Amino acid sequence: MTAPIDFYFDFYSPYGYLASTRIDGIAARHGREVVWRPFLLGPAFLATGHRPLTDTPLMGDYVTRDFARSARLLGVPFRMPEEFPKAALAPARAYYWLFDDRPDVAKALARAVYHATFGEGRDGTRPELVAELAAGLGVDPEELLAAIGRPDVKERLKSETGAAMQRGVFGSPYVFVDEEPFWGNDRLDQVECWLQTGGW
Amino acid sequence: MTAPIDFYFDFYSPYGYLASTRIDGIAARHGREVVWRPFLLGPAFLATGHRPLTDTPLMGDYVTRDFARSARLLGVPFRMPEEFPKAALAPARAYYWLFDDRPDVAKALARAVYHATFGEGRDGTRPELVAELAAGLGVDPEELLAAIGRPDVKERLKSETGAAMQRGVFGSPYVFVDEEPFWGNDRLDQVECWLQTGGW
Repeated sequence: MTAPIDFYFDFYSPYGYLASTRIDGIAARHGREVVWRPFLLGPAFLATGHRPLTDTPLMGDYVTRDFARSARLLGVPFRMPEEFPKAALAPARAYYWLFDDRPDVAKALARAVYHATFGEGRDGTRPELVAELAAGLGVDPEELLAAIGRPDVKERLKSETGAAMQRGVFGSPYVFVDEEPFWGNDRLDQVECWLQTGGW
Repeated sequence: MTAPIDFYFDFYSPYGYLASTRIDGIAARHGREVVWRPFLLGPAFLATGHRPLTDTPLMGDYVTRDFARSARLLGVPFRMPEEFPKAALAPARAYYWLFDDRPDVAKALARAVYHATFGEGRDGTRPELVAELAAGLGVDPEELLAAIGRPDVKERLKSETGAAMQRGVFGSPYVFVDEEPFWGNDRLDQVECWLQTGGW
């Protein structure tokens, strides 16, 4: 078992969701674990000058079609939430609040939020929904709701987002195998090949 | 043999080059031909608000690495031309000047320009280089140089670019299988799957 793979994603990124359904399986086939690292795409968009794909002229219709088509090919459920895009603060804050002490619960919550958001089309930015999903994993929902309003928890997400950008992350999903960067759900086959071959 | 596949690309698009090395082979395996349709990305960038990837903050270093890494994986030569990006007017005009009467020569010239540009790092926007490459295919270089300065030939590229955007093309490469759109070199595996299955 060598160093874990870093999987950066925004909770309101459809391609992040698609990648999340595959990344741990790919890593496991090559004896690796995956650290999930949610961040906020908003600051990255400020730097690149890009907008969310669905809001970009000419591209919006295409990507909406592509999200669903790629999901069908992977055999995973897909449904866009009605309001899109939104800043996914609550699930990302809840993730890092859980992460240090209960990393497995944090990852299970992230999966649950992604499934609710893009598998079922629910609003995964809603603190109440995040708390409800966390309750199903044994987390006290009231404690979670209080935690994600705390300054130190808010600050943690800011610093994780800053650290991601420092590392060059500008989109979601974004994967590092050791220090090799791969951007996009499209690159997961290359990620697998890199793990298999040690690079080319 | 059913309807040909449409392959849209800009002559100064590295991902267009990578896709150009695979698209005809993919199509041929499924009994299809490919019509190559160069267009200019510039007007599409005006619509999407995007810039060339290499000029986009945060993304530039990544995509430069990714171009070369993807080329190595495909086993095709890759070298960035020194000046990049540039508007690739000369090869696109020359292509359409040849296309109606000599489509096979037009495609062979397009391959030669792409190889010179991204296989060898030469400046494929230079009319003299395009003429030299065309001469190797039996085209009179002087006639080509005169043709690409003609108003009707310039107009043809404008109208082809307009038609591409009308059809929703906003990036390079962009492929239509029947009316199903696929954006990006990353989507060629899906293109092949679509041809094989008739869609999913």
